[in-house]
Amino acid sequence: MPGPSAASRLTAALIERTVAGPGVDEAGAALVGRAVADTVAVMLAGAHEPAPVGLREALTPPPGPAFVVGVRGRTAPDHAALLNGAAAHALDFDDVCHSVKGHPSTVLVPALLAVADRTAPTGRDLVDAYGVGLDVGAAVWSGFGPDHYARGWHATSTVGVVAATAGVARLLRLSAAQVGHALGVAASFAGGLRQNFGTDTKVLHAGIAAEGAVRACLLGAAGVTSEGAALGGPLGMLHVLGAGDVEGALGALAGPSVLTGRRGLNVKRYPCCYFAHRAVDAVLELPVPVPDDVAWIEVTVPPGSLSALKYDDPHTGLEGKFSGPYVIAAAMLQRELTLADFTDAAVARPGVRELARRVRWSESPTPPLGAAEWQDGYAVVRVEHRDGRVDQTRVDVPRGHAQNPLDDHEIEAKFRSCTEHLLGTERAIRAARRLRTIATAEDASTWSVDLDRHPEPPTEESGSS
Amino acid sequence: MPGPSAASRLTAALIERTVAGPGVDEAGAALVGRAVADTVAVMLAGAHEPAPVGLREALTPPPGPAFVVGVRGRTAPDHAALLNGAAAHALDFDDVCHSVKGHPSTVLVPALLAVADRTAPTGRDLVDAYGVGLDVGAAVWSGFGPDHYARGWHATSTVGVVAATAGVARLLRLSAAQVGHALGVAASFAGGLRQNFGTDTKVLHAGIAAEGAVRACLLGAAGVTSEGAALGGPLGMLHVLGAGDVEGALGALAGPSVLTGRRGLNVKRYPCCYFAHRAVDAVLELPVPVPDDVAWIEVTVPPGSLSALKYDDPHTGLEGKFSGPYVIAAAMLQRELTLADFTDAAVARPGVRELARRVRWSESPTPPLGAAEWQDGYAVVRVEHRDGRVDQTRVDVPRGHAQNPLDDHEIEAKFRSCTEHLLGTERAIRAARRLRTIATAEDASTWSVDLDRHPEPPTEESGSS
Repeated sequence: MPGPSAASRLTAALIERTVAGPGVDEAGAALVGRAVADTVAVMLAGAHEPAPVGLREALTPPPGPAFVVGVRGRTAPDHAALLNGAAAHALDFDDVCHSVKGHPSTVLVPALLAVADRTAPTGRDLVDAYGVGLDVGAAVWSGFGPDHYARGWHATSTVGVVAATAGVARLLRLSAAQVGHALGVAASFAGGLRQNFGTDTKVLHAGIAAEGAVRACLLGAAGVTSEGAALGGPLGMLHVLGAGDVEGALGALAGPSVLTGRRGLNVKRYPCCYFAHRAVDAVLELPVPVPDDVAWIEVTVPPGSLSALKYDDPHTGLEGKFSGPYVIAAAMLQRELTLADFTDAAVARPGVRELARRVRWSESPTPPLGAAEWQDGYAVVRVEHRDGRVDQTRVDVPRGHAQNPLDDHEIEAKFRSCTEHLLGTERAIRAARRLRTIATAEDASTWSVDLDRHPEPPTEESGSS
Repeated sequence: MPGPSAASRLTAALIERTVAGPGVDEAGAALVGRAVADTVAVMLAGAHEPAPVGLREALTPPPGPAFVVGVRGRTAPDHAALLNGAAAHALDFDDVCHSVKGHPSTVLVPALLAVADRTAPTGRDLVDAYGVGLDVGAAVWSGFGPDHYARGWHATSTVGVVAATAGVARLLRLSAAQVGHALGVAASFAGGLRQNFGTDTKVLHAGIAAEGAVRACLLGAAGVTSEGAALGGPLGMLHVLGAGDVEGALGALAGPSVLTGRRGLNVKRYPCCYFAHRAVDAVLELPVPVPDDVAWIEVTVPPGSLSALKYDDPHTGLEGKFSGPYVIAAAMLQRELTLADFTDAAVARPGVRELARRVRWSESPTPPLGAAEWQDGYAVVRVEHRDGRVDQTRVDVPRGHAQNPLDDHEIEAKFRSCTEHLLGTERAIRAARRLRTIATAEDASTWSVDLDRHPEPPTEESGSS
């Protein structure tokens, strides 16, 4: 257990990074712009899923300047962060990052946009704040160590609330003292249990963390105090929720930005569990099979992957996202995976279900094809035909991974696939470009201008509703 | 680690107790009435302390039916629970309970009153809901085990959010399915670190837990789902935040109500750390000394008491609450301890500071006076005069403890001392009686009628403010 000195050094380093840490470079700004566009795309697509709808039904939105995606209306910044955070995570189609063991943008982006609506920063400031938040998140994750997630914490939420607090504090230009208090408040807001995975509450975790970040900063700005050792102290967040590796957190802060690393942002190409993405890419690399000729499809992945892919026989669209056999069969037949493949009706399609019964997933520390080494993961897919022919391939770095990123065109295509049924094609294209290039905006509060579903002035009828 | 069956039994038992558990008896109703009056008294006295003021400054209150104590205005139920919970805990003068290792009413009462304003239940329903919530809290605490608090969690908040969720769910008459989802949502809301003790964030913990409880119930009612094993499962709240003693939690639920036990509600007679209360009572039992004749005052308490009483030389009113020497000296000279003794100016009084320098606190597992046995605590105070005379006494059960409760008159006196500078004497007396007898109210939403600081109809001037 470190003495007060390690805890104080951590606090000082976190404040220093937040207040005065370097902005992101041009390549990083392009990545952040894509992350913002990608997050807003899945936010709009998810805004009418059960968790965000439940939040809107249960809670009273106060009036305010912050835009709520997918609904006509603006509210207070913390409330907008809550609603938009839940919407962004509702489809599990938002980006992931190994450096924070979870989904960074579903917390960071809604929190930052909610504050941007109030303060109208430049796009460059917004992008720099994202970079600061992501790096603070990676430091917190390093301080927790792997036991944090294994024990049952949902790191997206626990790491996310502190990460987003740093980002929002940067955007609001809080003083060093205010940043210190805001981070300490955020430490007491951290919560969220993996036991709730597979339910609406998992989705709430993202919104609650985004809301907590906005609140922590507004409270810090209002003079509310917290303890200087709330993160690194013996009863502080890193110890209580994790291994308390304060030196590890300091080391992560001293290292290069997450955005420049090989474990940077992984944008999801498919709206399903990330543990299935490599296998889907492998399926799409193989020759197109004739379904009736397929005897078996064997998929091999590293140990630990299957605990998330827990539905062998899915009955709902949500279960389908976490079903290895379903995802493989659908990808093989559709030659693509889109949101349309994860409705309850799509999961019930007899052809897909029939092929899914011939898919077998297993785990192995050593890939059965190619080199024995791998880094973040691998998938080997082997298709055995009834005539004895075998097609097989291996994918280690899936499309959308930090080392194999989606290009601007693909980001815009995903944006359209998520939103054009809501916005129309023209506005979807405009919105995607505006968001992807947010770093160049003079006023980042313009991020939402293309997103209102009812841009026309209110008529008598809509005005009365 | 228990299998799913223990987790399911716990969920079923918690739902059963919440939906259909017995109401409190007449004696219990009197205790709850006193707790409600006591909590509102300290809430009103605390409403202008830094944490509740910071909350009001930082966040936007949406309009709604729920009364905010100490401020003219009503807001949404969750927001009122947040503000009133922080106000109730701001002075650390609210009740404590060994069965939940913390302050139960500062979370339960604000959450219940916020919902009562919306649904206007009978007073009896309100009181029964309090009893259900307290017992659910004791079950959660039993499931955590003592390691929970030792590790750094603020149980007032972590236990409190689930306890208050059960209470609010009872008051809202949620269905069994809705209660189950609400409790699971609450499990993911649990947070709050002891490292933040001594700062405004400790005060926030109470408000956040009360708000979380109201939100969990409104979300459960709106159809938002959580996992059935969110409390008792292997990655559930009891395991992740504590020892995961699911059978212990079940045992506590099967036992008698906390209200009828010897470890029931302890109402604070003095606005300072509860670890000093026995010693203050002992001082007040001893003959009145002549200060100049006092050579030494020795106070002996059980091991563990002094970690909270950490300021030997306090410089602020808040530090004075956690200073053993100051509290003893002030009690000896004032023959009473009131809020007026815990301002920065009061702590600086030379006479009190001079006497405080002659006070020595120490810990011992064996009391130096009387029987070797003790239960929740003891204090021996020994006053040595310069002429060699010695006065000494011992107190095990302080005034206000569940086994030595304040009577109605004393509750009303505390209410007046907290509120009559704000309400005037007549309204303070009326409010105290109304709240203390809330169990007899036909409509519990009348609880706040005497508490508005500006009860007169708006004039032109006040109407425009």
